Amino acid sequence: MTSRNLDIVAIGDALVDVIATCDDAFLDRHGLPKGSMQLLEPAAADALYDAMGSAREMSGGSAANSMAGASAMGLSTAFVGQVADDQLGQIFAHDMRALRVQFDTPPVSDGLPTGRCLILVTPDAQRTMNTCPGASHQLRADALDEDLLASARIIMLEGYLFGPEQPRRAMERAIAIAHRAEREVALTLSESVCLPGRKENFIGTVESGGIDLLFANEDEVLQLTGRGDLDGAIGELARSVPTLVITRGPAGALAFERGVRTDVPAMAVQKVIDTTGAGDLFAAGFLAARCKGRGIERQLMTGGIAAAEVISHFGARPVADLKELVKL
Amino acid sequence: MTSRNLDIVAIGDALVDVIATCDDAFLDRHGLPKGSMQLLEPAAADALYDAMGSAREMSGGSAANSMAGASAMGLSTAFVGQVADDQLGQIFAHDMRALRVQFDTPPVSDGLPTGRCLILVTPDAQRTMNTCPGASHQLRADALDEDLLASARIIMLEGYLFGPEQPRRAMERAIAIAHRAEREVALTLSESVCLPGRKENFIGTVESGGIDLLFANEDEVLQLTGRGDLDGAIGELARSVPTLVITRGPAGALAFERGVRTDVPAMAVQKVIDTTGAGDLFAAGFLAARCKGRGIERQLMTGGIAAAEVISHFGARPVADLKELVKL
Repeated sequence: MTSRNLDIVAIGDALVDVIATCDDAFLDRHGLPKGSMQLLEPAAADALYDAMGSAREMSGGSAANSMAGASAMGLSTAFVGQVADDQLGQIFAHDMRALRVQFDTPPVSDGLPTGRCLILVTPDAQRTMNTCPGASHQLRADALDEDLLASARIIMLEGYLFGPEQPRRAMERAIAIAHRAEREVALTLSESVCLPGRKENFIGTVESGGIDLLFANEDEVLQLTGRGDLDGAIGELARSVPTLVITRGPAGALAFERGVRTDVPAMAVQKVIDTTGAGDLFAAGFLAARCKGRGIERQLMTGGIAAAEVISHFGARPVADLKELVKL
Repeated sequence: MTSRNLDIVAIGDALVDVIATCDDAFLDRHGLPKGSMQLLEPAAADALYDAMGSAREMSGGSAANSMAGASAMGLSTAFVGQVADDQLGQIFAHDMRALRVQFDTPPVSDGLPTGRCLILVTPDAQRTMNTCPGASHQLRADALDEDLLASARIIMLEGYLFGPEQPRRAMERAIAIAHRAEREVALTLSESVCLPGRKENFIGTVESGGIDLLFANEDEVLQLTGRGDLDGAIGELARSVPTLVITRGPAGALAFERGVRTDVPAMAVQKVIDTTGAGDLFAAGFLAARCKGRGIERQLMTGGIAAAEVISHFGARPVADLKELVKL
């Protein structure tokens, strides 16, 4: 089942997105801070689902979206994540494979259903995410295929899985495997990592040299460092990881690599429809250019192009021909 | 659970659409005539799903789409259709209720899964539908709530359910209830009705005065009458039903009502993306104007406006504010 010489293997949440539009008043009524991500218990997720509008369903999950994008840009990719043996799990697995992302994690059949992310998109194109992780957070460390991970140039980990204990152990095992095989470990920071009680674990991992490449947005950097000044926070974090990449929404993106800062502007987008997946596709583009041996500026620019595509329509996975758009 | 004085109650397939794009070569390889609808056995549906691209899921079903549209235009509606007690069934029920369409048919839990329609959209915006009806064709005549049906001005029946024996009995009971309550019975013709061995049943129903209002497209009229000349076929059918409405795609639509023919042109659409649901939303607009007491020309025009909206994006249900668009 293992492919040799993959570009990237990602480990992350295996979710189906349930996407509906709503107005600001709906978010207020349900106490949902716009643009945030919260984890919901099943009963709370069902109550929110009952209240929200008619929806469309599309496979999602942050790192899974990144692999969908990287595969669309011509990379050989695999994804590791936990679904249940149910209809949403079948949808998730189908979509991964249809996008030529190797996906062999066997479904679990004795626990929670496949995870869902209830995504509310407001008229200003902001997404507010409400994740009911279900089976996704039941990923076990022994579900990882060591040969598969060691075969990839880059191992990409998703911050959301770094929070809860069971999948965090899988992430820690993945880091150990990757470093034994001398692979680069990339991680996307998430609010989930930055919660009190979880942050310390994560900072310990960073400071012990576990992360080679860290993706974060400005809010996440402030939350993780606990600092109020962005430049100071970025500087502090840049000393802990060889490559730090910060996405800044309409202000573009920047990287610190071996002490050198590179900034790029955001790509122009005619009309922003739904910002879901912007960070995921940015990471996909960045890593695609990196795997093709392009320089850091080109890596940032390619991330920007992929992010611009995904925010121009509903859903967190590309619909346009990304390979043509990025021309690596 | 019954609402009083509904505008329309529809009975039809309860399906979740699984929508992917493909090229013409894919249709050829799988022997699928472009623009057609075929019924698939579960194994054949699974094989086609495995072969098709990454998809988005949205609640569908022809008459259910019509009710979604009619509700969006301000009508009070209900839908009767059979889902299973599974995740796709929950999605279908959620979306109906979120659109304020009353939906109380209890799910079945001991048979087939909720039905799916695998929809392949080619670059020319044509849809090719591959329906695996599942639980949907297990609708039983005794699942109909007589009070609910008798409370509506119009009872709308879906041709797809008129083919197979079990749901056909439900349709026949619905016709009997409607006529006892002196309600108008509308039916959307479908290829499914026109198959050899089924056609005779249907023609019998029409000729016994069971159908007051018949929606059909040109192909369906030719298939049902078995004639080669369209005008002759339309004329023949118009003698059997008090109101006959024919949709003609980009050529517009026409109605024969009490011997008088009315033609309207199609609405202009900037870019046709996906023709799925065009007929369903035409029926919704037509019936919405009819329930509001508008004349036949306005009924046809309103159908055209609703159809134009739904073909301008992916999916068979409206996304724009139909009430604003049609201003009844």
